[in-house]
Amino acid sequence: MPFITVDMYEGRTIEQKRQLVKDLTEATMKLGVPASAVQILIRDVPKHNWANAGKLASEG
Amino acid sequence: MPFITVDMYEGRTIEQKRQLVKDLTEATMKLGVPASAVQILIRDVPKHNWANAGKLASEG
Amino acid sequence: MPFITVDMYEGRTIEQKRQLVKDLTEATMKLGVPASAVQILIRDVPKHNWANAGKLASEG
Amino acid sequence: MPFITVDMYEGRTIEQKRQLVKDLTEATMKLGVPASAVQILIRDVPKHNWANAGKLASEG
Amino acid sequence: MPFITVDMYEGRTIEQKRQLVKDLTEATMKLGVPASAVQILIRDVPKHNWANAGKLASEG
Amino acid sequence: MPFITVDMYEGRTIEQKRQLVKDLTEATMKLGVPASAVQILIRDVPKHNWANAGKLASEG
Repeated sequence: MPFITVDMYEGRTIEQKRQLVKDLTEATMKLGVPASAVQILIRDVPKHNWANAGKLASEG
Repeated sequence: MPFITVDMYEGRTIEQKRQLVKDLTEATMKLGVPASAVQILIRDVPKHNWANAGKLASEG
Repeated sequence: MPFITVDMYEGRTIEQKRQLVKDLTEATMKLGVPASAVQILIRDVPKHNWANAGKLASEG
Repeated sequence: MPFITVDMYEGRTIEQKRQLVKDLTEATMKLGVPASAVQILIRDVPKHNWANAGKLASEG
Repeated sequence: MPFITVDMYEGRTIEQKRQLVKDLTEATMKLGVPASAVQILIRDVPKHNWANAGKLASEG
Repeated sequence: MPFITVDMYEGRTIEQKRQLVKDLTEATMKLGVPASAVQILIRDVPKHNWANAGKLASEG
């Protein structure tokens, strides 16, 4: 703990994910926890699986 | 908020998902929230990743 | 399956939840699944545990 | 209920998943619940979507 | 990893949870992972926050 | 999207949560998304609901 999940649109590169988990971990360490305690799970979401206001994100 | 996730068997069409998020959003708006506040995340689940009573759904 | 979770602000009444799960279940049944297959988990979220645009919802 | 999710590295075989859901269900039944009440959802996670200590698991 | 969540009705004792996480961990280790890799998060769910077939579990 | 959840031990102050969501949002914006797209849900977890290596965190 802390355990973090990130649901975001698919298509990010490994380099982007590498940077993201580094930055999220550093932000979380300000709580006073060691880096080793921070775990992050990324979920790649297709736009047709995400909706706001009753419309799929893939529908524009 | 509200934030809704739907884990369901993979294989539904875009049209089915389009209808589902529309209907779920309308049902949720009865709480008194605007459509724009309702977010929905669908997760497509293979039958071999779901189990009930100790058996994978893919096992019949 | 389908398995649905709803994270929403705490404070809704039992009557509101009763109506919500009824409506969400009926919306989901249009996929062709029986009512008995639809399961819903509600999570009551305090406003100080939800953030958008970098600010807690409790901060106004 | 109980409803169990298992996020684990992708690559396990159907046979491993079959055994896992059987064992997890039996462990959970010790709570006094019938097998039919225990539901399990497995999520296969690529190593580049999991991080500990600020580094992706795929980075060694 | 593996990372396991258990949503179950509130009311279980610490002793029941202690036994449950021990048993779930041992079941998961059969995948060939060490005990230290297995993490479990329990969520206590009020019966009025769980529904099946369109009815809250608290409604009998 | 992105949608972020943080499961962490209960007991953090509002001020700590305020800082955390600010920092996590800024870290996520490096992906090229606007602040308004970033949503965060914090879940406060009692130590007796978290286990590693088969033991509850509350057991020391």
